[in-house]
Amino acid sequence: MSVPVELSYDRLAATHRESAEVVRRTPLLTATSLSSRCGGTIVLKAESLQRTGSFKLRGALSKLRAIGDATGVVAGSAGNHAQSLAYAAHSCGVPCQVFMPLGASISKLAGVRAFGATVRQEGDSVDACVDLARRHAEETGAVFVHPFDDLDVIRGQAGLGIELLEDVEDLGVVVVPVGGGGLVAGVAAAIRARRPDVRIVGVQAERCSPYPASLAGGAPVVAQSVATIADGIAIKRPGEITLPLVRDLVDDMVTVSEDAIAEAMVLLLERSKLVVEGAGAASLAALFTAQVRPAEGATTVAVLSGGNVDAGLLAGIAARQETRVGRRLRLYTRVSDQPGGLAGLLASVAESRANLLEVDHVRDGVDLDVRETGVELTLEARGPEHAEAIKDSLIARGYPVEVI
Amino acid sequence: MSVPVELSYDRLAATHRESAEVVRRTPLLTATSLSSRCGGTIVLKAESLQRTGSFKLRGALSKLRAIGDATGVVAGSAGNHAQSLAYAAHSCGVPCQVFMPLGASISKLAGVRAFGATVRQEGDSVDACVDLARRHAEETGAVFVHPFDDLDVIRGQAGLGIELLEDVEDLGVVVVPVGGGGLVAGVAAAIRARRPDVRIVGVQAERCSPYPASLAGGAPVVAQSVATIADGIAIKRPGEITLPLVRDLVDDMVTVSEDAIAEAMVLLLERSKLVVEGAGAASLAALFTAQVRPAEGATTVAVLSGGNVDAGLLAGIAARQETRVGRRLRLYTRVSDQPGGLAGLLASVAESRANLLEVDHVRDGVDLDVRETGVELTLEARGPEHAEAIKDSLIARGYPVEVI
Repeated sequence: MSVPVELSYDRLAATHRESAEVVRRTPLLTATSLSSRCGGTIVLKAESLQRTGSFKLRGALSKLRAIGDATGVVAGSAGNHAQSLAYAAHSCGVPCQVFMPLGASISKLAGVRAFGATVRQEGDSVDACVDLARRHAEETGAVFVHPFDDLDVIRGQAGLGIELLEDVEDLGVVVVPVGGGGLVAGVAAAIRARRPDVRIVGVQAERCSPYPASLAGGAPVVAQSVATIADGIAIKRPGEITLPLVRDLVDDMVTVSEDAIAEAMVLLLERSKLVVEGAGAASLAALFTAQVRPAEGATTVAVLSGGNVDAGLLAGIAARQETRVGRRLRLYTRVSDQPGGLAGLLASVAESRANLLEVDHVRDGVDLDVRETGVELTLEARGPEHAEAIKDSLIARGYPVEVI
Repeated sequence: MSVPVELSYDRLAATHRESAEVVRRTPLLTATSLSSRCGGTIVLKAESLQRTGSFKLRGALSKLRAIGDATGVVAGSAGNHAQSLAYAAHSCGVPCQVFMPLGASISKLAGVRAFGATVRQEGDSVDACVDLARRHAEETGAVFVHPFDDLDVIRGQAGLGIELLEDVEDLGVVVVPVGGGGLVAGVAAAIRARRPDVRIVGVQAERCSPYPASLAGGAPVVAQSVATIADGIAIKRPGEITLPLVRDLVDDMVTVSEDAIAEAMVLLLERSKLVVEGAGAASLAALFTAQVRPAEGATTVAVLSGGNVDAGLLAGIAARQETRVGRRLRLYTRVSDQPGGLAGLLASVAESRANLLEVDHVRDGVDLDVRETGVELTLEARGPEHAEAIKDSLIARGYPVEVI
């Protein structure tokens, strides 16, 4: 496990020092309830609070400084890389152009434009946008900036590892979300140089996880493309530069399910008051599903790599999660189609101290008698036991109840 | 504007020093886009990231230390005070009992229990719970802890002001959410002692704002009780101790609307990646509605006082906000009740590049012809212009469209 000379600690530290005016030193937050749930001392590296909302700023800025007085930079990206490059280019006074797919998230488009970049919304996928960006670079002389497979970029990401070395005295385990592998490679390079004993684990989303097979086979394997809420790490193919670095410097690579990621996002929202995107929450998901065992007698850091998620998506995940953990309950039942039929049902609901969120009359259900109306109820309960009690009390009052 | 001797800077600083092991020094986050929107340099004091999710921990801990070896502490509270007292008592090894109303939020009940306190869920309002707590104190010898009208508590809250003095070099204006007035009184006492030139402004929720009238009349006035999303500062009556302090030490008191608070919550969620409760977001709401003018040539701090909000409520606010800013669009239209009728409508929606979130068939609408079906659509648009374009394109294809 030797760190290559291009990533020597001195070079990484110099890059980190030079970035201090633009890059925020993000806070480390202890997490009491998450720690007791995972069985170790868990500290969150809230890189979601980085300027532009993700760690990508570190690498983009490092690249901008390395290329010096370019006539312009260009990239193809649907999100975090685009925002970070735009911000870094703006801070260096370099023109920036980004090709973004037609389906790109509205808030990310707005973010890139707000940072002063020119957006060209063309192409149906990120891959198509990357091709467009490369062609644009060839035609105009602007510098194409790859999101991860670039040593200058990786040197920038290493800054996060340096902050961990400096800020966490008893560092034992570091858990890092992995897409292309630029962040984990940089972080590992920095930490290995000073603390070869620290365990470094990468996490991919189960649905798009080319790293385990690529590491096993020794060459980049292309993953099936499946949608995941961790879209920020849904990279189908490890890089030519990052794969050998990950092989040499990272101890282990695990995967996490969509449900675990969603639950981690909600836990961070409710317990830690942090908005973390799916990709950024994968590290915590790996810890509470026991894919990664916390350090014994030392601190485990979960890197929350980014926070760029639309409010609408966040709202959906929070609502779905409420259902899953039994705090949101959807029931179907029938009432008599007479005055007072629905009122009687709702009075029973109120008595069980459930909070009524939504009620829907369904008059055309196939299972209904002539004088009956179907009713769909969405209720808020205190937890699974309370949800069960609500259901039982309605059945006891003669309502035929089905959980939807 | 003289600071009373009980709140001398030396005492406040000593309290702050002693709290360092339990209380987190919360981060200050620059906010570029919010700054340009408000026309000044805005920095966020992310007290929402405090342990227990609010500033109340500072005051509760200060009180616990002041009373020494009590046999127990007791309070009546629906939320932040309860959680903070429970945490502080646990850290001091003192038994804690909290009376919470029957309708208290599920996550707050869980939070208080997780911090080791005994919860008694009795009484229908916070006022009833406070009465129960006082009676319990008289009967058992436990110490009743008031959430704000207590000099020991105020001394603890002052720690936030000390951190601002130490961490913000060019402090010009500090904007603080105000419920009972404990936080703003403490912060003002600390800042006045060292920097009498700094402007300190309090913010109340319009719907529950007894301070302006109480300050004008010179005695506590009781506000009408109206529900507000800023429930953490919905205190109906200023304190006997806090009111004169606020009169002497605070420069101005303004109020903000429910809509402004909701928008501030969503901005913090999307731009700053922070979960901030309504009460905590009131300070930012005052800035972007121009109720408070930012400092010129100096830094303005918006204190985000807490982050305790249920994921379900947050989800609702985010969804409503999407509608308000034109990114979420609800339409009602009619299609022919023939095979392919709905499919045709949805194809038109897809062509206008709107994202379909929900579709609802309504077959019993009063305005329907026999062979028609009503359809309610919930769509995601890129913004108000896009929403308008979607509507127009459906009308152009012959669909009668109403915005819901």
